[in-house]
Amino acid sequence: MGEVKLIGTHSSFPCARIVWALKLKGIPYEFIKEDLLNKSSLLLEMNPVYKKVPVLLHDNKPVVESLIIIEYIDETWKTNPLLPQDPYDRAMARFWAKFVDEKVVPSAWEAMISQGEEKAIDSAQEALGFLENLIKGKKFFGGEKIGYLDLVVGWVALWLKAMEEVGGMTLLDSLKFPSLDEWTQNFIQVPAIHESLPPKEDVVNYFQFGLDYLRSLAAK
Amino acid sequence: MGEVKLIGTHSSFPCARIVWALKLKGIPYEFIKEDLLNKSSLLLEMNPVYKKVPVLLHDNKPVVESLIIIEYIDETWKTNPLLPQDPYDRAMARFWAKFVDEKVVPSAWEAMISQGEEKAIDSAQEALGFLENLIKGKKFFGGEKIGYLDLVVGWVALWLKAMEEVGGMTLLDSLKFPSLDEWTQNFIQVPAIHESLPPKEDVVNYFQFGLDYLRSLAAK
Repeated sequence: MGEVKLIGTHSSFPCARIVWALKLKGIPYEFIKEDLLNKSSLLLEMNPVYKKVPVLLHDNKPVVESLIIIEYIDETWKTNPLLPQDPYDRAMARFWAKFVDEKVVPSAWEAMISQGEEKAIDSAQEALGFLENLIKGKKFFGGEKIGYLDLVVGWVALWLKAMEEVGGMTLLDSLKFPSLDEWTQNFIQVPAIHESLPPKEDVVNYFQFGLDYLRSLAAK
Repeated sequence: MGEVKLIGTHSSFPCARIVWALKLKGIPYEFIKEDLLNKSSLLLEMNPVYKKVPVLLHDNKPVVESLIIIEYIDETWKTNPLLPQDPYDRAMARFWAKFVDEKVVPSAWEAMISQGEEKAIDSAQEALGFLENLIKGKKFFGGEKIGYLDLVVGWVALWLKAMEEVGGMTLLDSLKFPSLDEWTQNFIQVPAIHESLPPKEDVVNYFQFGLDYLRSLAAK
């Protein structure tokens, strides 16, 4: 199996994705907590291009970028597959994962920093609407079992709620997004997810810190 | 094998990647030329999220986003594999492909629209420097044989040169990037690549059009 380490922080959602993938696969690992305000020489050495977490170290060889790490884990340890087996289903899962990272999360971030400006909320809800349509009538994005796309969308279950609190707004209105809301309940009931969600307060502080930092830059 | 169609334009490099992948695999396909100034109902139906080319239609089922399409092709038709077989090598290929699309291409674009402003050139050359280190001592990014990452970096072989012409600047200085320059020669000598490179003039016009359009927006 080799030695597995994860450089990360507890409140970052790309790191949570990797924790979940490792737990669902039953892979023991060592968590190396990173201080993003004072980055370690290990992080700078292992991710010289982006200097970001998460970094997976497998026998000291680094893999970075959360979606790429999940695929690496899935290809290296084949029990409990995370991606679908059919090539078309795999392409669709990858497409929607990219959509979450490039459209859904950034639009929610915009809505948060605008403190709930109407146009930004519309844009974020439009993006969430695609996920609502996708999950309608299914228990998980992966079908009957939790899978790759569930881990990617997992951001909705906690980080989106923290963003809503910091932004003083509601994005995941359960009347507008009943299926996504129901999925959230299914998702957090999975033991591997439930036991490794950070406290909401920590995530709220993380986004509040980010927002305050942006404001301090803007005030200069 | 099924019916394969590609909705695209001849001068777009994400489309060229797909043409190359199909040719290297020996898969017959129909090319459906798209007019991006007057998008077809087929494009809007097949890529409702982004309304962009390329779109691969396999038995009328759409796959979009060039990196995802290449993986789909590689997983569906297994002869002449494009991605490496080893999970770690696959993760590295995916990492650098993402780097090309998120760092290298946008930084060259910035250098072009700034008309060769020094800071923008430095930034683009810093990104190209990572590719130079990666290809040093190798014939192809895929090793002895052309592969996935070669198709992704293939942008350098023509589109980057067209950007240089439109921006009145040099980015791929062969003294600074001798290995990448040599790779370019190896790459365009592969028949599947050579026979399907669009005329440079078309690509120059494509970027010039983009630049003029941005300027017309800025002037408003």
